[in-house]
Amino acid sequence: MDRRSFLTKGAIGGTAAAASSLAAPAYAQGNRTLTLVTTWGRGLAGVHDSAQYCADMITEMTDGQLTVDLRAAGELVGAFEVFDAVSAGQADMYHGVDYYFLGQHPALSFFSQIPFGMTFQEFNNWYYHDGGSELADELYSIFGLKAFPAGNTGPQSGGWFAQEMNSPEDFQGLRFRMPGQGGQVLGKLGASVQNLPGAEVYQALASGAIDGTEWIGPWADEKAGFQEITKIYYTAGFHEPGPNLNLTMNLDTFESLTPAQQSIIHNASRASNLWTMSLFMANNSAALQRLQSGGVQVLEFGDEIWDAFGSAAEEVIQEPMGDELYKRCYDSYMESLESSANWSSRSEGAFTQQRNRIMGM
Amino acid sequence: MDRRSFLTKGAIGGTAAAASSLAAPAYAQGNRTLTLVTTWGRGLAGVHDSAQYCADMITEMTDGQLTVDLRAAGELVGAFEVFDAVSAGQADMYHGVDYYFLGQHPALSFFSQIPFGMTFQEFNNWYYHDGGSELADELYSIFGLKAFPAGNTGPQSGGWFAQEMNSPEDFQGLRFRMPGQGGQVLGKLGASVQNLPGAEVYQALASGAIDGTEWIGPWADEKAGFQEITKIYYTAGFHEPGPNLNLTMNLDTFESLTPAQQSIIHNASRASNLWTMSLFMANNSAALQRLQSGGVQVLEFGDEIWDAFGSAAEEVIQEPMGDELYKRCYDSYMESLESSANWSSRSEGAFTQQRNRIMGM
Repeated sequence: MDRRSFLTKGAIGGTAAAASSLAAPAYAQGNRTLTLVTTWGRGLAGVHDSAQYCADMITEMTDGQLTVDLRAAGELVGAFEVFDAVSAGQADMYHGVDYYFLGQHPALSFFSQIPFGMTFQEFNNWYYHDGGSELADELYSIFGLKAFPAGNTGPQSGGWFAQEMNSPEDFQGLRFRMPGQGGQVLGKLGASVQNLPGAEVYQALASGAIDGTEWIGPWADEKAGFQEITKIYYTAGFHEPGPNLNLTMNLDTFESLTPAQQSIIHNASRASNLWTMSLFMANNSAALQRLQSGGVQVLEFGDEIWDAFGSAAEEVIQEPMGDELYKRCYDSYMESLESSANWSSRSEGAFTQQRNRIMGM
Repeated sequence: MDRRSFLTKGAIGGTAAAASSLAAPAYAQGNRTLTLVTTWGRGLAGVHDSAQYCADMITEMTDGQLTVDLRAAGELVGAFEVFDAVSAGQADMYHGVDYYFLGQHPALSFFSQIPFGMTFQEFNNWYYHDGGSELADELYSIFGLKAFPAGNTGPQSGGWFAQEMNSPEDFQGLRFRMPGQGGQVLGKLGASVQNLPGAEVYQALASGAIDGTEWIGPWADEKAGFQEITKIYYTAGFHEPGPNLNLTMNLDTFESLTPAQQSIIHNASRASNLWTMSLFMANNSAALQRLQSGGVQVLEFGDEIWDAFGSAAEEVIQEPMGDELYKRCYDSYMESLESSANWSSRSEGAFTQQRNRIMGM
């Protein structure tokens, strides 16, 4: 991989001219401005907030020594150009979700989301204490990058459909927006899958360019306004049980920082990871009730559809196994997931089942 | 409440003399040393680590401008003296769990744990985005304190017993260690409950001063060595599904910090909250397997016992409702919990059920 390749694969939105006109980082009065680009349109609920939170905390904690200048998708580079822009050093860092960049390396799925994969807590167990961060360092350094988990949306909804989905066959020919390996799974079921950045989804659905979409969950989906277009909404989905959002820095930029500044980047990201996850989870329930009051029909996929998702996901996850680093990530990820899932079922699973039964929740 | 009351109620371990001999914070070469006392014995797995992580991150991020000097339980003051010591300004902050201090104010249970209450994620939803932090500020300011959630053990195990627990009657006369409102619940079932700090539990169990104990979960319990004394272990418990550990500062000390330093305290705590929770969760499953291999019998309470826990917990939680601030915390907490639990069941609950079924986990 050429870490200096810039604006090569799959870049949409923005222009190469806009990207390459970025100035080198500014140094003024002993302070330094770091440019943060994102895969999110400005103001997208939760995800833009998460990027802004990172920017604000870094600026605050360094007392402005590092002042973060947030440029949302399209303001300097397009959503899908941020990886290359930061790899090339033309922006200092990006906030985004890395399944947009599987063309760069398939193992990026482990640091964003694999279908039927880890929840937020399971990912954190792996990343911080069970080998994940070391593998991430190895992977991102190929591209001259250093990544920091900095947010999570929590479990994403199955999505918005024009009609009820009653069998796996209903996915055949469906034009559906779903990024990453999740989208590849729907492709196995015969769907025509599109990988649009968030800011372009509403228009695609409204214009009929796609038949349906998933985005995040009730709160962000309501803000995006999909309920204005269709009323059929599936909650639990297979594709993103806990997608990790990274704050990813140019490695040279990171290494040029003082140890205290580096620690601030680490801890701003960890704090944002916690803050962002709870932002989504705190808002989803009330949003779902509002959607239902507004006539949205809330459904769950049947077991037959879940089983079809499962078989297709197994194929998709196995496909890149010829890549040695992908395989090492897979082995580490799966061992940690099985261990986490075991304790989680016995502890939080068993507790919440009893609590919800006894308290009628 | 008198915020200057010092070493009044229920203090054990350490001495008043040791506490009042603490020096005022030291200022040297522009740097400032902050004394951090804890409710944990030095080296107690996970909980001491969490306090050390907070200390290290604050020291690192401020480049030593604030150097945190950690004094574990008994090194300056006893485990149960930290609240008063920091309230009185004789130490700058403490790391601990505040159900040890319900004698100071019953509402401290909402910021540590109520039985059948919130999990880690549910607590974060409430605290950061649904009214919790504002209520905490109001409560802790009564004592001249400011609290920051800074760790969580995840769901705690039901505990170690000398014999199988087959009915609620088996708790009658049982001498058991369990702090907080959870201990009050066992008291309703006829147990003789003791509130010992962690460092004293092993000795109490080994000497026969208590018949059984809960401590944290498989990893921390194994490190504590309870499997050397008894082999009967219950996993899911009602009492602490997600106890919050606070880093709590003297309010005057906090207000004397610069805005950047204050932001560093906030974010070190948030980062520690995430890091600590995943530390426990990453280690529990393997520890449980080791315990089982060593002959420990792993059990779950039956529904009849859970129902008895539930009825008694309802009484215990209602008892302090005459306190106006307790009632406001209760109303806010319960409204948020019901909302969180609803979305959590529909999303993460539904997903993990399907995943674990399909993947055989």
